[in-house]
Amino acid sequence: MSIRLLATAVLFGVATLSAQTPAAPADPLLINSGRIPPAYPVPYPPAKVEEIKAVLDRVLAYAETASPILIIDPESGETVAGLDALPPRVALRAGQFSTLSYEWGVTYAGMLLVADITGDTRYRDYAARRITTIATLAQHIRAQPKLPDFPLPPVPQPGTPVGPPRFNNLRSVIRPHSLDDSGSMAVAFLKASRAGVEPDLLRPSIDRWIEWISRGQMRLSDGTLARNRPLANTLWLDDLYMSVPALAQMGALTGETSYFDDAAAQVLQFARRMFVPEKRLFLHGWVDGMASHPAFHWGRANGWAIVAMVELLSVMPEDHPQRAAVLELYRAHAAGLAAVQGIDGRWHQLLDRTETYGETSCSAMFTYAIARGINRGWLDALAYGPVASLGWNAVAQQVNAEGQVEGTCVGTGMGFDPMFYAFRATSPYAAHGYGPVLLAGAEMIALRQGAGKDALVSDSAVQFQPSPARF
Amino acid sequence: MSIRLLATAVLFGVATLSAQTPAAPADPLLINSGRIPPAYPVPYPPAKVEEIKAVLDRVLAYAETASPILIIDPESGETVAGLDALPPRVALRAGQFSTLSYEWGVTYAGMLLVADITGDTRYRDYAARRITTIATLAQHIRAQPKLPDFPLPPVPQPGTPVGPPRFNNLRSVIRPHSLDDSGSMAVAFLKASRAGVEPDLLRPSIDRWIEWISRGQMRLSDGTLARNRPLANTLWLDDLYMSVPALAQMGALTGETSYFDDAAAQVLQFARRMFVPEKRLFLHGWVDGMASHPAFHWGRANGWAIVAMVELLSVMPEDHPQRAAVLELYRAHAAGLAAVQGIDGRWHQLLDRTETYGETSCSAMFTYAIARGINRGWLDALAYGPVASLGWNAVAQQVNAEGQVEGTCVGTGMGFDPMFYAFRATSPYAAHGYGPVLLAGAEMIALRQGAGKDALVSDSAVQFQPSPARF
Amino acid sequence: MSIRLLATAVLFGVATLSAQTPAAPADPLLINSGRIPPAYPVPYPPAKVEEIKAVLDRVLAYAETASPILIIDPESGETVAGLDALPPRVALRAGQFSTLSYEWGVTYAGMLLVADITGDTRYRDYAARRITTIATLAQHIRAQPKLPDFPLPPVPQPGTPVGPPRFNNLRSVIRPHSLDDSGSMAVAFLKASRAGVEPDLLRPSIDRWIEWISRGQMRLSDGTLARNRPLANTLWLDDLYMSVPALAQMGALTGETSYFDDAAAQVLQFARRMFVPEKRLFLHGWVDGMASHPAFHWGRANGWAIVAMVELLSVMPEDHPQRAAVLELYRAHAAGLAAVQGIDGRWHQLLDRTETYGETSCSAMFTYAIARGINRGWLDALAYGPVASLGWNAVAQQVNAEGQVEGTCVGTGMGFDPMFYAFRATSPYAAHGYGPVLLAGAEMIALRQGAGKDALVSDSAVQFQPSPARF
Repeated sequence: MSIRLLATAVLFGVATLSAQTPAAPADPLLINSGRIPPAYPVPYPPAKVEEIKAVLDRVLAYAETASPILIIDPESGETVAGLDALPPRVALRAGQFSTLSYEWGVTYAGMLLVADITGDTRYRDYAARRITTIATLAQHIRAQPKLPDFPLPPVPQPGTPVGPPRFNNLRSVIRPHSLDDSGSMAVAFLKASRAGVEPDLLRPSIDRWIEWISRGQMRLSDGTLARNRPLANTLWLDDLYMSVPALAQMGALTGETSYFDDAAAQVLQFARRMFVPEKRLFLHGWVDGMASHPAFHWGRANGWAIVAMVELLSVMPEDHPQRAAVLELYRAHAAGLAAVQGIDGRWHQLLDRTETYGETSCSAMFTYAIARGINRGWLDALAYGPVASLGWNAVAQQVNAEGQVEGTCVGTGMGFDPMFYAFRATSPYAAHGYGPVLLAGAEMIALRQGAGKDALVSDSAVQFQPSPARF
Repeated sequence: MSIRLLATAVLFGVATLSAQTPAAPADPLLINSGRIPPAYPVPYPPAKVEEIKAVLDRVLAYAETASPILIIDPESGETVAGLDALPPRVALRAGQFSTLSYEWGVTYAGMLLVADITGDTRYRDYAARRITTIATLAQHIRAQPKLPDFPLPPVPQPGTPVGPPRFNNLRSVIRPHSLDDSGSMAVAFLKASRAGVEPDLLRPSIDRWIEWISRGQMRLSDGTLARNRPLANTLWLDDLYMSVPALAQMGALTGETSYFDDAAAQVLQFARRMFVPEKRLFLHGWVDGMASHPAFHWGRANGWAIVAMVELLSVMPEDHPQRAAVLELYRAHAAGLAAVQGIDGRWHQLLDRTETYGETSCSAMFTYAIARGINRGWLDALAYGPVASLGWNAVAQQVNAEGQVEGTCVGTGMGFDPMFYAFRATSPYAAHGYGPVLLAGAEMIALRQGAGKDALVSDSAVQFQPSPARF
Repeated sequence: MSIRLLATAVLFGVATLSAQTPAAPADPLLINSGRIPPAYPVPYPPAKVEEIKAVLDRVLAYAETASPILIIDPESGETVAGLDALPPRVALRAGQFSTLSYEWGVTYAGMLLVADITGDTRYRDYAARRITTIATLAQHIRAQPKLPDFPLPPVPQPGTPVGPPRFNNLRSVIRPHSLDDSGSMAVAFLKASRAGVEPDLLRPSIDRWIEWISRGQMRLSDGTLARNRPLANTLWLDDLYMSVPALAQMGALTGETSYFDDAAAQVLQFARRMFVPEKRLFLHGWVDGMASHPAFHWGRANGWAIVAMVELLSVMPEDHPQRAAVLELYRAHAAGLAAVQGIDGRWHQLLDRTETYGETSCSAMFTYAIARGINRGWLDALAYGPVASLGWNAVAQQVNAEGQVEGTCVGTGMGFDPMFYAFRATSPYAAHGYGPVLLAGAEMIALRQGAGKDALVSDSAVQFQPSPARF
């Protein structure tokens, strides 16, 4: 209320006055009126479009370096010069990050969105070059007289870390056998395809993945996608992202309603079991037949869930019978998330436990999901704009000078105790942070060009609309 | 339960025993029985009346120094010698604190209450001298052939701090245009007037302020007091204090029921929108038409709300039709506040977020509101006495040797993100802490002379009644 | 989900590849796949039976040293050589711990359970020797022509610590006058008696204590056990342990249903007043007639409550009409406790306040209560096994090399402010930790030999069943 003080008096004569009497110490009244800058741990004012873009550019530059396109002959280990002289067997050599993984599927989706919103074609190129390379290799393998057998690596023994593969033989494209193989890369391919990136080349891989999601993956008797990991008939909240956006994009590509039906059913059937109404947050896991479900509201899994809803709502027909239910759930989730945003802008690893660390990937996903919700008119800009603005500023601070995204929780299984989640390591090499940062930045740019055009610090707080009047 | 051990044995022979056998280390059994003093961060036993008074005396001494009565000619900047030779234009020069501000209105109310409860007339004099000076200057200005135009200071640009005014030209008395101008100073004038401080001199200013509250300030269509700041049609919880106590005191002065009606309506209409029953805490802000209201339970705003209710209940007729509803709300709020008292006695800046700092002004307001509730029979002394006692001890520790009140959040607008509140600076120059400390100390003295007369540390915990029996 | 990466590729050729090209830095992909060991603050994998037993053996060794059997003549202070030449008056000299106290009653119960589950008779001997000594001294006193008058020690003045007694004159056996005198030692005697430890010698003491619980202790009008401490008609949650297990064991010993009826009534009547359904936790205290009950969910008191339920359920007939209600309450409490387990495995001193310290005695009690619930089929091993496993690992870490149990809150009265609980000291000389650690360890051994036989870290998290499949 302090600023009102200013309006209670006139300022004329101050200079004169100062000259005549020893000035009162400047601080007290300044402080009293609240007009001293707080020591915020992250920048407070809404980021400008060019500031956001600069962060994304650093991420792009790092991604180019850290995830090169490297084709090898896995038998000889030799690098293959180009796509026009492929040996019978091919594989993708990993750099810092694998170019064919569910995490990097999100990165491609993020790159495409940045290109779409900013017009910067370098982002599109990043995704298109890698996606078409993968598709070309897949086409080449499919054209072999006999498909390779893709031997599985030895199953790691519990507690015995095994080094990850140094290259990828494209088994997950040719013969997917999990949602992690399928959904996220399918989304990247579908979005690229719909944006004109060689649709015919991409379609066979898309079809194979969609086939797995629709008919390959195990489901509960009511059709809900499930796994036998870590326990029989387990729902993983993460799987909403590994299925729903791909189904939705496939619906958009083909116009077939059944894809939207399945996508909406997944969202609502997961929610019936895993959305906790009192907290408006999702559980990470749910096990069929377990009497009491441990309440671990893991950040990233909640991120997958809300991003899945956002992706579905973005392409679902306005008149789809389940649209209203999905939208209502999305809004409830957004409200629940806003209520637990950390005081330094990032969300906590366990969302309702402030004693756990701020985690970047989930924070970026929430920022994306909320910013897009405002941009599409699903959320109130006045209420949610400051949440997204702070979320972005906190996430942007995790992008270091090199363009690495720091503070992201590494790959994580499903646990039933709090220590498991609370002490999960973070690393700039956790690939899960990159796509969400790109998505969040892109949507924040759209926000700052649209509903948040006039966002400002007004009367000391971020507002997404200038005050209509002083009193 | 440890003390029960003592009753399980006799103590005879201990000395003899010690002499005969090497004494067991003294610690184990002492510790086992819980009879070692905990390392409390603030004093634990209920403060004695004289200890409370000593704290208040330090505050009084500092307030005398830091808020002198300085009348100036704003045109020349020269100090005016006395009230009998006033130039046409007059202004009040600010010391460390402005003597004419809503914050200092609370200070006057606090001074008057200390005088009333302790009989120490120095406190009354502090308030009376300043209040009559303001009233005299206002009378003088009103007597001018032409009212000054009180030009508004330039509106500060967002993000550009503007130094606060060094003097006050009494515009807020002559021509109030906000609740911050009106309610708090009106309460001070009304309480002074009802205590016999020159009622005729004070009445014109009171009338002008009440006029503003009753008919000047914008209201929603149902009559709820609102502002267009920061957004259109915004309710500020703070405004309950800036209106309700003044209306209630005016009802008590005039006997007109309509003032109580309006005061009660404000409380209940704010509560219908902003009281969160699950937490029994109020939101800071509420914006008409906003679909989702961010849940920031700012400490001081909740302080304003409960003090407003206390002030209303203190003078509202017993048979007023809304009294029961206000009392029920007050009790619910008190219970919600008791549930979130910090472990070191102060409440948190964001009440339900223990990761935010302990804040003095809200803690003092809650201590006042709860202590008075016990004193007036609205709350159970056994349940709430220990809460008030600890609250006071923690607040008293924030009064430094010089009499400054530390740890008070500076003036604060309304934000829709958590970082805004969590990192608000604190300062002894934040004027909001002084009045609440005086109110809290006064009511704590009354408590220790009444229902809390026998409060003690019994069986290691603070109790507001000696144990009726040992078993 | 990271481990899935491994299944997306084959590993053949890695060695060759490494030799040919400079190896990519090992860390990125390792980290990306989540396969780096987290920096857990306590050991994570489920403890092996022999590891648990080693911890218990340390506790046994310390207990032997710290609680010797020392009979003295309290008049002369001289040590009595043996049980066959007792002077008219006898007393038990305390070592580090009193061998006749409610805390040590729990220790005896713990020792008997370890013996029962592991077959290690040293644990049974520890308990049996002390219990029979107490019973023999009691028999001797009862045989005196005139009972001693057991003068009470002076009542300590508030704030004036009084040294605890250095010996115990057996008043609490001969003439109990509190639940603390009666229930816990009665349980120890009853369990020892039912295990064949001189039932005839023990029975008179058992009868005297049961008599006090059933007819001596004050009760509310509905029969709920109460105290006049610290306030009139106060329920102490702790009293569930000081009554219910003894009544239940007496029911098991005698076959009389009325004991089970009273035990179940206590549990359900306490719960009706003190169980907070939203949190599924109990209040520490409840005062008849107090309008608002302060919500302090003290860890140890909740420990007493759930252990009392476990003890009742362990011997209550399957067809008892209240069994289902007690079981349902137990399950709700277990769920509430699992939801607030600290991220380092111990529960907090105030269970719902993460800003309070991790406390050992309550953590051990919860571990015991949950592990036994799994062992008896009351709880789902898949959901609760990881909770118990982590709980034990955290508790075990508090047992130092000497066998002392660290981190236990000292004896604690009932407070109505948060600071009282939050700053209660902890000490290895707080006797309350020892029995619970023994109980927890014993039941964890049973768990690891039964439902938790195959518990393991699978896919990076503790699971109480191996994954049925990888996908």
